[in-house]
Amino acid sequence: MASLPQKATHQQTRAFNQQLVLRAIYDHSVISRAEIARLTGLTRTSVSELVGDLLRTGLAEEVGRGPSTGGKAPILLDVPARGRHIVGLDLGESAFSGAVVDLRGTIMHSMSLPLDECDGDAAVDLVFTMVDGLLASNGSSPTLGIGIGAPGLIDTRTGTVHWAVNLNWADLPLGELVSRRFGLPVVVANDSHAAAVAELTFGPRPRPANLVVVRVGRGIGAGIILNGRLFQGDGSGAGEIGHTVFDGGSEECHCGRVGCLETVASMTAMVEAARRLDASIIDEQALITAMRGGNTAARDVAVRGGEQLGRAIAALISALNIDHVLLIGPATELGDDWLAAVRRRATASVLPLLARNTHIEIGAEPENVVLIGAAALLMTHELGLSLAR
Amino acid sequence: MASLPQKATHQQTRAFNQQLVLRAIYDHSVISRAEIARLTGLTRTSVSELVGDLLRTGLAEEVGRGPSTGGKAPILLDVPARGRHIVGLDLGESAFSGAVVDLRGTIMHSMSLPLDECDGDAAVDLVFTMVDGLLASNGSSPTLGIGIGAPGLIDTRTGTVHWAVNLNWADLPLGELVSRRFGLPVVVANDSHAAAVAELTFGPRPRPANLVVVRVGRGIGAGIILNGRLFQGDGSGAGEIGHTVFDGGSEECHCGRVGCLETVASMTAMVEAARRLDASIIDEQALITAMRGGNTAARDVAVRGGEQLGRAIAALISALNIDHVLLIGPATELGDDWLAAVRRRATASVLPLLARNTHIEIGAEPENVVLIGAAALLMTHELGLSLAR
Repeated sequence: MASLPQKATHQQTRAFNQQLVLRAIYDHSVISRAEIARLTGLTRTSVSELVGDLLRTGLAEEVGRGPSTGGKAPILLDVPARGRHIVGLDLGESAFSGAVVDLRGTIMHSMSLPLDECDGDAAVDLVFTMVDGLLASNGSSPTLGIGIGAPGLIDTRTGTVHWAVNLNWADLPLGELVSRRFGLPVVVANDSHAAAVAELTFGPRPRPANLVVVRVGRGIGAGIILNGRLFQGDGSGAGEIGHTVFDGGSEECHCGRVGCLETVASMTAMVEAARRLDASIIDEQALITAMRGGNTAARDVAVRGGEQLGRAIAALISALNIDHVLLIGPATELGDDWLAAVRRRATASVLPLLARNTHIEIGAEPENVVLIGAAALLMTHELGLSLAR
Repeated sequence: MASLPQKATHQQTRAFNQQLVLRAIYDHSVISRAEIARLTGLTRTSVSELVGDLLRTGLAEEVGRGPSTGGKAPILLDVPARGRHIVGLDLGESAFSGAVVDLRGTIMHSMSLPLDECDGDAAVDLVFTMVDGLLASNGSSPTLGIGIGAPGLIDTRTGTVHWAVNLNWADLPLGELVSRRFGLPVVVANDSHAAAVAELTFGPRPRPANLVVVRVGRGIGAGIILNGRLFQGDGSGAGEIGHTVFDGGSEECHCGRVGCLETVASMTAMVEAARRLDASIIDEQALITAMRGGNTAARDVAVRGGEQLGRAIAALISALNIDHVLLIGPATELGDDWLAAVRRRATASVLPLLARNTHIEIGAEPENVVLIGAAALLMTHELGLSLAR
């Protein structure tokens, strides 16, 4: 049977209430002790003690006085954005990128290191080099930890990269390696999962409880938010829709099989297919430009890709009955015809009653979406906060 | 922003701890007050008070003394299986079935009423008649409530049946109607969702955290358990995989579209297709018998149906990366060739790394799986218990 939940011990209660107070300050920014007590239901004495701890550790600061409501004007509290910082990395592109992010998700420094087709241990060394550089650039505020978004199948609980084909990593304990080297907490997540967290964090309010974020670039992957939290599945591979096989596919995929969604709907596949029809379409940008200029070859390929993507999204909607789907990644630049193809096929392939509330939109996609999402995951993990500007 | 969790009030704390104590007794059956205190972390005084309440309301009873560990032999407590009962209904077949179920899921009385193709209000009246009959048969123990498993799209939060085509129900507030008529708490859930809860409840231990249960009978539906709880989606339609459209389908579905999974992989569809090849295959039982007797027509049809079902399951596995899938319903009688077709196509259609841990098995499928699952949902809702024998 499932283990019985335990009554909270005193120490657990204090840690829980500590997070409650921190979250109240962070979410309201700015707020008085009395207001915190009212919001959390904690006593004034408890709040004062807990706020005292936060002031001592630099996670809260006093920022002046609010309007008096009769008595003494209350002291207002805030979480200083620079009270901690997080190192965020994105290992999913042809260059690694990284940044120092503050507690509100603002990027303080960033850097980029070309991968130059290195992989294996050399790619791990590049990660170390990047973290070294970012920590050195950072000045004096304490580092909360390191959040890493990486391609492939990643067990976030252990920080292990099970498989990242482009980097030639297999069962690599990346989290442990980085944590040991820098003596800091590390969270490693699939890059599409990290991007989904960033979209949830910076997307419009109120945040939907359930959200699917589909990224279409060189590959195709999704991040799935259920009940407000990232759902990763039994093997942390939830959302790996790029390698579902569809009927009628004939292209070989880099995974070794034939007819994976990525072979027709990824940007790489669409560029390839369009180039066969029009030799001037040599890369992603050329495809986007051709599409916007009304090029028929580009349009045919993009619509076909969009339709197959729509089919895969329909499978997600049927499985989960999730109303909100966001599309991100370079493919979103393909324009309205592509988006219309995705929507048309997605809604035609599920029960009308499920489809009628479905919203398939282009995501906000803040710059550095993956590394910001990874930093947000680290912050949730360490402080119980959900990153928000 | 998401609302801040509140510190529990005294009353909430008492209710929470009450459930904690009840669950400790229920799960351990039998247990002493001292052991409850140790397991829950509550003080002996609190446990004694809370147990007192449970004894007064008949949710716990003293059942003798355990071995002494030095001092006085401790009094042992249990939850009497007949301390409450639940009325469970299954409205998903051509006859409605219902039962009175005790707190351990044992069926005390059951009944069945043929639908005789009635629908709409007449079908609601049949529900009332059935509950009347079951309550009358029940003797003296108090009724905890009514759990209903019904076909179609159902909002479990409000008890509304949005759409149940066979019963001609649209936006019917079934939960409210039944609750008002009998003055009892009512939970209404999709029948496949209820069946999934029953499989989780009575399946092998340890229970997997994530589980998909696919039912193949007249239709096809799935129930999805995530993190140990039923996931119903934004419109309570999670798992409605029967109406995903696949390429190459040519049969019209009763939902009005062409090529839904149900048109090739449901028992109804397979019987129809097999009958076209062999006129002796007139119903589900004939198909099962023909399949087991090595009839080629039956085998071809069943394998094709199994393969398309496998494809749909692959989409679920890709979306959610769930290792455990159970198959239930009449189709599971089709035997090894059908099961092999499902497994073969499911594992061939997802990344090998995701497929390698996938277990697709035939479920335990206790008799009356839907109504027992509905009763289990009611019990979780009212007492916080997870039904277990």
